[in-house]
Amino acid sequence: MGFNIVLIEPEIPMNTGNIGRLSLASGSKLHLVKPFGFELDDKRVKRAGLDYWKHVSLFIYESIDDFYAKNEGGNFAYFSSHGTYDYCAIDYKDDMFLIFGKESSGLPESIVTENADLVYNIPIYSPHIRSLNLANAVSIVVYEGIRNLKTNIR
Amino acid sequence: MGFNIVLIEPEIPMNTGNIGRLSLASGSKLHLVKPFGFELDDKRVKRAGLDYWKHVSLFIYESIDDFYAKNEGGNFAYFSSHGTYDYCAIDYKDDMFLIFGKESSGLPESIVTENADLVYNIPIYSPHIRSLNLANAVSIVVYEGIRNLKTNIR
Repeated sequence: MGFNIVLIEPEIPMNTGNIGRLSLASGSKLHLVKPFGFELDDKRVKRAGLDYWKHVSLFIYESIDDFYAKNEGGNFAYFSSHGTYDYCAIDYKDDMFLIFGKESSGLPESIVTENADLVYNIPIYSPHIRSLNLANAVSIVVYEGIRNLKTNIR
Repeated sequence: MGFNIVLIEPEIPMNTGNIGRLSLASGSKLHLVKPFGFELDDKRVKRAGLDYWKHVSLFIYESIDDFYAKNEGGNFAYFSSHGTYDYCAIDYKDDMFLIFGKESSGLPESIVTENADLVYNIPIYSPHIRSLNLANAVSIVVYEGIRNLKTNIR
Protein backbone atom coordinates (compact mmCIF):
# COMPACT_ATOMS: atom_id res chain seq x y z
CA MET A 1 0.00 0.00 0.00
CA GLY A 2 1.35 3.41 -0.88
CA PHE A 3 1.15 6.49 -3.06
CA ASN A 4 3.29 8.35 -5.55
CA ILE A 5 3.91 11.90 -4.32
CA VAL A 6 4.76 14.21 -7.22
CA LEU A 7 6.29 17.69 -6.79
CA ILE A 8 6.36 19.76 -9.95
CA GLU A 9 9.24 22.27 -9.93
CA PRO A 10 9.68 22.57 -6.14
CA GLU A 11 11.43 25.76 -5.01
CA ILE A 12 12.23 25.47 -1.30
CA PRO A 13 14.77 22.83 -0.21
CA MET A 14 13.38 22.38 3.32
CA ASN A 15 9.95 21.52 1.94
CA THR A 16 11.35 18.86 -0.38
CA GLY A 17 13.42 17.46 2.51
CA ASN A 18 10.36 17.34 4.77
CA ILE A 19 8.30 15.71 2.03
CA GLY A 20 11.04 13.11 1.53
CA ARG A 21 10.72 12.23 5.22
CA LEU A 22 6.93 12.09 4.83
CA SER A 23 7.21 9.91 1.69
CA LEU A 24 9.23 7.36 3.57
CA ALA A 25 7.00 7.51 6.68
CA SER A 26 3.89 6.96 4.59
CA GLY A 27 5.31 4.20 2.40
CA SER A 28 5.13 6.47 -0.68
CA LYS A 29 7.48 7.05 -3.59
CA LEU A 30 8.68 10.60 -4.28
CA HIS A 31 8.73 11.99 -7.84
CA LEU A 32 10.45 15.35 -8.46
CA VAL A 33 9.99 17.22 -11.74
CA LYS A 34 12.72 19.71 -12.82
CA PRO A 35 13.60 22.55 -12.82
CA PHE A 36 14.11 22.78 -9.04
CA GLY A 37 14.73 26.02 -7.12
CA PHE A 38 17.77 24.41 -5.44
CA GLU A 39 20.41 21.75 -5.96
CA LEU A 40 19.25 18.32 -4.84
CA ASP A 41 22.46 17.89 -2.83
CA ASP A 42 21.71 21.18 -0.97
CA LYS A 43 22.41 20.47 2.68
CA ARG A 44 19.05 22.02 3.61
CA VAL A 45 17.23 19.20 1.76
CA LYS A 46 19.11 16.58 3.76
CA ARG A 47 18.83 18.49 7.03
CA ALA A 48 15.02 18.70 6.72
CA GLY A 49 14.94 15.07 5.63
CA LEU A 50 17.28 14.21 8.53
CA ASP A 51 19.19 10.97 8.05
CA TYR A 52 16.19 9.54 6.20
CA TRP A 53 16.84 11.08 2.80
CA LYS A 54 19.07 8.23 1.55
CA HIS A 55 16.21 5.74 2.05
CA VAL A 56 13.62 7.70 0.03
CA SER A 57 12.38 5.97 -3.11
CA LEU A 58 13.15 8.85 -5.47
CA PHE A 59 12.39 9.47 -9.16
CA ILE A 60 13.68 12.54 -11.01
CA TYR A 61 12.26 13.93 -14.28
CA GLU A 62 13.76 16.46 -16.66
CA SER A 63 10.35 18.03 -17.43
CA ILE A 64 6.61 17.57 -17.04
CA ASP A 65 6.49 15.84 -20.44
CA ASP A 66 9.16 13.43 -19.23
CA PHE A 67 7.02 12.67 -16.14
CA TYR A 68 3.89 11.99 -18.19
CA ALA A 69 5.79 9.86 -20.73
CA LYS A 70 7.22 7.63 -18.00
CA ASN A 71 3.96 7.25 -16.04
CA GLU A 72 1.41 6.85 -18.80
CA GLY A 73 -1.86 5.31 -17.65
CA GLY A 74 -1.31 6.33 -14.03
CA ASN A 75 -4.14 7.29 -11.74
CA PHE A 76 -3.62 11.05 -11.24
CA ALA A 77 -5.05 13.53 -8.72
CA TYR A 78 -3.96 17.18 -8.69
CA PHE A 79 -3.96 19.61 -5.77
CA SER A 80 -4.44 23.35 -5.97
CA SER A 81 -5.96 26.03 -3.77
CA HIS A 82 -8.14 26.69 -6.85
CA GLY A 83 -9.31 23.06 -7.07
CA THR A 84 -13.04 22.44 -7.40
CA TYR A 85 -13.43 19.38 -5.19
CA ASP A 86 -12.58 18.65 -1.55
CA TYR A 87 -9.53 16.36 -1.09
CA CYS A 88 -11.72 14.18 1.20
CA ALA A 89 -14.00 13.40 -1.77
CA ILE A 90 -11.25 11.49 -3.59
CA ASP A 91 -11.68 7.76 -4.05
CA TYR A 92 -8.04 7.09 -3.18
CA LYS A 93 -6.40 4.13 -4.91
CA ASP A 94 -3.22 2.29 -4.11
CA ASP A 95 -0.31 3.63 -6.26
CA MET A 96 -2.25 6.83 -7.08
CA PHE A 97 -0.16 9.82 -8.21
CA LEU A 98 -0.81 12.82 -5.91
CA ILE A 99 0.51 15.83 -7.81
CA PHE A 100 1.46 19.20 -6.28
CA GLY A 101 2.74 22.44 -7.83
CA LYS A 102 5.46 24.84 -6.76
CA GLU A 103 5.31 26.88 -3.55
CA SER A 104 4.98 30.34 -5.13
CA SER A 105 2.37 29.73 -7.80
CA GLY A 106 1.08 26.16 -7.59
CA LEU A 107 0.45 23.96 -10.62
CA PRO A 108 0.97 25.28 -14.15
CA GLU A 109 -2.25 26.87 -15.46
CA SER A 110 -2.33 24.47 -18.44
CA ILE A 111 -2.38 21.39 -16.18
CA VAL A 112 -5.22 22.80 -14.07
CA THR A 113 -7.25 23.65 -17.17
CA GLU A 114 -6.72 20.33 -18.93
CA ASN A 115 -7.49 18.27 -15.80
CA ALA A 116 -10.20 20.37 -14.15
CA ASP A 117 -12.19 17.33 -13.02
CA LEU A 118 -9.17 15.93 -11.21
CA VAL A 119 -8.10 19.07 -9.30
CA TYR A 120 -8.78 19.03 -5.56
CA ASN A 121 -8.36 21.58 -2.78
CA ILE A 122 -7.82 21.50 0.97
CA PRO A 123 -10.48 23.76 2.54
CA ILE A 124 -9.18 26.88 4.31
CA TYR A 125 -11.20 28.57 7.03
CA SER A 126 -9.67 32.05 7.04
CA PRO A 127 -9.99 34.91 4.57
CA HIS A 128 -6.37 35.83 5.37
CA ILE A 129 -4.87 32.61 4.02
CA ARG A 130 -4.37 31.77 0.37
CA SER A 131 -2.65 28.41 0.80
CA LEU A 132 -0.94 26.04 3.22
CA ASN A 133 2.76 25.33 3.37
CA LEU A 134 3.52 22.74 0.65
CA ALA A 135 4.86 20.05 2.99
CA ASN A 136 1.87 20.49 5.29
CA ALA A 137 -0.56 20.21 2.36
CA VAL A 138 1.14 17.04 1.09
CA SER A 139 1.02 15.57 4.63
CA ILE A 140 -2.72 16.22 4.98
CA VAL A 141 -3.55 14.64 1.61
CA VAL A 142 -1.29 11.59 1.93
CA TYR A 143 -2.51 10.65 5.41
CA GLU A 144 -6.15 11.18 4.41
CA GLY A 145 -5.41 8.86 1.48
CA ILE A 146 -4.00 6.22 3.82
CA ARG A 147 -7.00 6.56 6.18
CA ASN A 148 -9.36 6.26 3.23
CA LEU A 149 -7.61 3.16 1.83
CA LYS A 150 -7.55 1.46 5.23
CA THR A 151 -11.27 2.22 5.77
CA ASN A 152 -12.18 0.76 2.37
CA ILE A 153 -10.15 -2.39 3.01
CA ARG A 154 -12.03 -3.11 6.28
CA MET B 1 -15.77 25.16 14.74
CA GLY B 2 -12.10 24.92 15.58
CA PHE B 3 -9.37 23.43 17.73
CA ASN B 4 -6.74 24.59 20.17
CA ILE B 5 -3.29 23.63 18.90
CA VAL B 6 -0.79 23.43 21.78
CA LEU B 7 3.00 23.32 21.28
CA ILE B 8 4.95 22.53 24.43
CA GLU B 9 8.44 24.07 24.33
CA PRO B 10 8.84 24.30 20.54
CA GLU B 11 12.47 24.50 19.35
CA ILE B 12 12.49 25.32 15.63
CA PRO B 13 11.17 28.73 14.53
CA MET B 14 10.12 27.65 11.02
CA ASN B 15 7.91 24.92 12.45
CA THR B 16 6.12 27.34 14.78
CA GLY B 17 5.68 29.79 11.89
CA ASN B 18 4.25 27.06 9.67
CA ILE B 19 1.95 25.91 12.44
CA GLY B 20 0.76 29.51 12.93
CA ARG B 21 -0.22 29.56 9.26
CA LEU B 22 -1.97 26.20 9.70
CA SER B 23 -3.78 27.40 12.85
CA LEU B 24 -5.24 30.31 10.96
CA ALA B 25 -6.09 28.20 7.89
CA SER B 26 -7.90 25.64 10.04
CA GLY B 27 -9.76 28.13 12.24
CA SER B 28 -7.73 27.03 15.29
CA LYS B 29 -6.16 28.93 18.17
CA LEU B 30 -2.43 28.50 18.80
CA HIS B 31 -1.09 27.98 22.34
CA LEU B 32 2.67 28.11 22.92
CA VAL B 33 4.22 26.93 26.19
CA LYS B 34 7.65 28.33 27.19
CA PRO B 35 10.60 27.91 27.17
CA PHE B 36 10.98 28.25 23.38
CA GLY B 37 14.13 27.39 21.42
CA PHE B 38 13.95 30.82 19.69
CA GLU B 39 12.68 34.35 20.19
CA LEU B 40 9.06 34.77 19.13
CA ASP B 41 10.01 37.83 17.07
CA ASP B 42 12.64 35.75 15.20
CA LYS B 43 12.25 36.64 11.56
CA ARG B 44 12.22 32.92 10.65
CA VAL B 45 8.92 32.50 12.54
CA LYS B 46 7.33 35.29 10.54
CA ARG B 47 8.89 34.19 7.26
CA ALA B 48 7.46 30.67 7.64
CA GLY B 49 4.13 32.18 8.75
CA LEU B 50 4.32 34.62 5.83
CA ASP B 51 2.19 37.73 6.30
CA TYR B 52 -0.35 35.65 8.20
CA TRP B 53 1.38 35.61 11.59
CA LYS B 54 -0.23 38.84 12.83
CA HIS B 55 -3.72 37.32 12.39
CA VAL B 56 -3.01 34.17 14.44
CA SER B 57 -5.07 33.82 17.62
CA LEU B 58 -2.08 33.31 19.94
CA PHE B 59 -1.80 32.38 23.64
CA ILE B 60 1.56 32.27 25.44
CA TYR B 61 2.25 30.41 28.71
CA GLU B 62 5.23 30.70 31.05
CA SER B 63 5.18 26.97 31.86
CA ILE B 64 3.17 23.77 31.51
CA ASP B 65 1.61 24.44 34.94
CA ASP B 66 0.54 27.88 33.71
CA PHE B 67 -1.10 26.23 30.66
CA TYR B 68 -3.03 23.72 32.78
CA ALA B 69 -4.11 26.37 35.30
CA LYS B 70 -5.56 28.58 32.57
CA ASN B 71 -7.30 25.77 30.67
CA GLU B 72 -8.74 23.64 33.47
CA GLY B 73 -11.54 21.34 32.39
CA GLY B 74 -10.42 21.39 28.75
CA ASN B 75 -10.78 18.40 26.48
CA PHE B 76 -7.17 17.26 25.95
CA ALA B 77 -5.58 14.88 23.43
CA TYR B 78 -1.82 14.30 23.34
CA PHE B 79 0.35 13.24 20.39
CA SER B 80 3.52 11.22 20.57
CA SER B 81 5.28 8.67 18.37
CA HIS B 82 4.99 6.45 21.47
CA GLY B 83 1.20 6.96 21.75
CA THR B 84 -0.95 3.84 22.14
CA TYR B 85 -3.91 4.77 19.96
CA ASP B 86 -4.25 5.81 16.31
CA TYR B 87 -5.04 9.54 15.83
CA CYS B 88 -7.98 8.47 13.60
CA ALA B 89 -9.62 6.78 16.61
CA ILE B 90 -10.15 10.10 18.41
CA ASP B 91 -13.70 11.30 18.89
CA TYR B 92 -12.76 14.87 17.98
CA LYS B 93 -14.71 17.64 19.72
CA ASP B 94 -15.03 21.29 18.89
CA ASP B 95 -12.54 23.35 20.96
CA MET B 96 -10.46 20.26 21.80
CA PHE B 97 -6.84 20.87 22.86
CA LEU B 98 -4.45 18.98 20.55
CA ILE B 99 -1.13 18.90 22.41
CA PHE B 100 2.30 18.31 20.82
CA GLY B 101 5.79 18.12 22.35
CA LYS B 102 9.12 19.52 21.20
CA GLU B 103 10.85 18.49 17.97
CA SER B 104 13.87 16.74 19.53
CA SER B 105 12.24 14.67 22.24
CA GLY B 106 8.45 15.01 22.10
CA LEU B 107 6.23 15.42 25.15
CA PRO B 108 7.70 15.36 28.66
CA GLU B 109 7.78 11.79 30.00
CA SER B 110 5.62 12.77 33.01
CA ILE B 111 2.78 14.01 30.78
CA VAL B 112 2.82 10.82 28.69
CA THR B 113 2.76 8.64 31.82
CA GLU B 114 0.00 10.55 33.60
CA ASN B 115 -2.23 10.72 30.50
CA ALA B 116 -1.49 7.35 28.88
CA ASP B 117 -5.12 6.85 27.79
CA LEU B 118 -5.12 10.16 25.94
CA VAL B 119 -1.86 9.77 24.00
CA TYR B 120 -2.23 9.13 20.26
CA ASN B 121 0.21 8.40 17.45
CA ILE B 122 0.32 8.86 13.70
CA PRO B 123 1.20 5.50 12.14
CA ILE B 124 4.54 5.32 10.33
CA TYR B 125 5.18 2.75 7.61
CA SER B 126 8.97 2.65 7.54
CA PRO B 127 11.46 1.15 9.98
CA HIS B 128 13.83 4.04 9.13
CA ILE B 129 11.56 6.79 10.49
CA ARG B 130 11.08 7.63 14.14
CA SER B 131 8.77 10.60 13.73
CA LEU B 132 7.32 13.11 11.30
CA ASN B 133 8.24 16.79 11.09
CA LEU B 134 6.29 18.59 13.84
CA ALA B 135 4.38 20.94 11.51
CA ASN B 136 3.47 18.03 9.25
CA ALA B 137 2.22 15.98 12.22
CA VAL B 138 0.09 18.89 13.48
CA SER B 139 -1.34 19.35 9.97
CA ILE B 140 -2.34 15.70 9.66
CA VAL B 141 -4.08 15.66 13.06
CA VAL B 142 -5.88 19.01 12.73
CA TYR B 143 -7.29 18.26 9.27
CA GLU B 144 -8.36 14.76 10.33
CA GLY B 145 -10.11 16.44 13.27
CA ILE B 146 -11.93 18.83 10.93
CA ARG B 147 -12.93 15.97 8.62
CA ASN B 148 -14.17 13.97 11.61
CA LEU B 149 -16.20 16.90 13.01
CA LYS B 150 -17.76 17.64 9.62
CA THR B 151 -18.69 13.96 9.13
CA ASN B 152 -20.33 13.80 12.56
CA ILE B 153 -22.34 16.96 11.88
CA ARG B 154 -23.81 15.54 8.66
